[in-house]
Amino acid sequence: MEIKKAVITAAGKGQRSLALQTFVDRDGTQKPALVIIIEEVVEAGVDELCVIVHPGDVEVYRSAAGRYASRISFVEQTSPLGYGHAVYCAREFVNKNPFLLLVSDHLYISSINKRCAHQLVEIASTKDCSVSAVQSTYESKLPYFGAIGGRRIPNCIPNCEGLYEVSTVIEKPTPTDAEQYLIIPGLRSGYYLCFFGMHVLTPSVMDLLKEEIDRCGEKGGVQLSSALARLPLFEKYLAYEVKGRRYDIGGKYGILNAQLAIALSGKNRDEVLCNLVELLATKISQ
Amino acid sequence: MEIKKAVITAAGKGQRSLALQTFVDRDGTQKPALVIIIEEVVEAGVDELCVIVHPGDVEVYRSAAGRYASRISFVEQTSPLGYGHAVYCAREFVNKNPFLLLVSDHLYISSINKRCAHQLVEIASTKDCSVSAVQSTYESKLPYFGAIGGRRIPNCIPNCEGLYEVSTVIEKPTPTDAEQYLIIPGLRSGYYLCFFGMHVLTPSVMDLLKEEIDRCGEKGGVQLSSALARLPLFEKYLAYEVKGRRYDIGGKYGILNAQLAIALSGKNRDEVLCNLVELLATKISQ
Repeated sequence: MEIKKAVITAAGKGQRSLALQTFVDRDGTQKPALVIIIEEVVEAGVDELCVIVHPGDVEVYRSAAGRYASRISFVEQTSPLGYGHAVYCAREFVNKNPFLLLVSDHLYISSINKRCAHQLVEIASTKDCSVSAVQSTYESKLPYFGAIGGRRIPNCIPNCEGLYEVSTVIEKPTPTDAEQYLIIPGLRSGYYLCFFGMHVLTPSVMDLLKEEIDRCGEKGGVQLSSALARLPLFEKYLAYEVKGRRYDIGGKYGILNAQLAIALSGKNRDEVLCNLVELLATKISQ
Repeated sequence: MEIKKAVITAAGKGQRSLALQTFVDRDGTQKPALVIIIEEVVEAGVDELCVIVHPGDVEVYRSAAGRYASRISFVEQTSPLGYGHAVYCAREFVNKNPFLLLVSDHLYISSINKRCAHQLVEIASTKDCSVSAVQSTYESKLPYFGAIGGRRIPNCIPNCEGLYEVSTVIEKPTPTDAEQYLIIPGLRSGYYLCFFGMHVLTPSVMDLLKEEIDRCGEKGGVQLSSALARLPLFEKYLAYEVKGRRYDIGGKYGILNAQLAIALSGKNRDEVLCNLVELLATKISQ
């Protein structure tokens, strides 16, 4: 299948200003986080974008998107009913097509020449089904992520390295639930496959989200994970270990860590390392 | 003399959004750079503040100042006639009083228990005259700063450690001018005393600025340094080597370096160092 549409969610509480934060990218130029995310999408060959924003944020986002603004549809999430509801706000944009879904409070650094979203889009095109990017994550981090249960697709099948068949999804699982439902044979003990903040989804996920929204009603809290947990009942659904790292810019030192990681993996690595050593030396001498 | 007023300039081109940038301070809490600067001032015992802003920026600055907003007078610099002119915009606020002057694109980390502005205010109160904070700076950095010429006050005079009598000031001196006018006996070879972005000034500086403004006219470019260069003709004018470091947040990696320096000198040093080592280790393994 061909993936030509992407949805970026940026409507969450406390998340609204993160995508507007300025970073120095790996290429040494300054740009808002939003543009770094858009470029992640565009370099994956996806050129129609939809950004879900908080009511009133369209103009500031349009301006931050700069030269990419013309290819973006902005949609306001008018009620704060949860992440799943934010994704559902893109249903008209998505129509009957598969789509790439990204959050706006994560930045990605690929460890190979192909960016993370590009890796994911390629595998989903080949396998012709929904694929969630995942990362092997230690159990102490389970309270922060959605995690999958399933089994590794044997390496003897060609082009299946790092691919898993998903049987269930639990959002922020307890250690007990994780041990019972999410242990994946072959992973290091104590490690689980947690979401990477990046999925390729088929349009049927919108139908499952609609059912979640009807079920939750006005109290909200609509989870994408609950919809994805039911996806394997109807369709093939895979997870893929992307070769790269995600940096959540929402935490206290999230911006600092993401900026450092980007700077240290980019063309100004030497300059940044020099500054770092100077800073550390200054501290020692005090 | 007693210093009860402070002026913070934030009207410069490209400087307007810097003070609004969020940092995690040494105490581990998130706050805009503006609040870190205000706290630098308040902890020096100065509680009436004036912030000079670009036209139209009053509301966004007032909101960023949070609980300090009530003690701040905001003044718009209606014509971009230079840094000296921005300072002059505070003349009615300053009236006939000495004042502490800070830029809004520098953050300070003291290497002793007393913050940098506090050190400066104490020495100016004792010496009863204008005092500019300075830092010994290698000649390659001269294009970025104002620098002073003068002589060190002998250590045999009590409480004069790190104090200099200023004879002249040159803004961004050429190497030739620096060698001719700014060499200070006793400093390491190739080093000069450059401004730290922090001064205590007597109200007569406003009169000197007025003369500069009349001289420059509508073409602007009014320098504080030109006014300060003439100050020693009329009054005692000292420079003081503050015990601390300044971080210019205006450069490309300025925000990153300042945030790192703050984080590494604060209560979360261990957490930040751990993240740093993890980041560097991740890079090596790729």
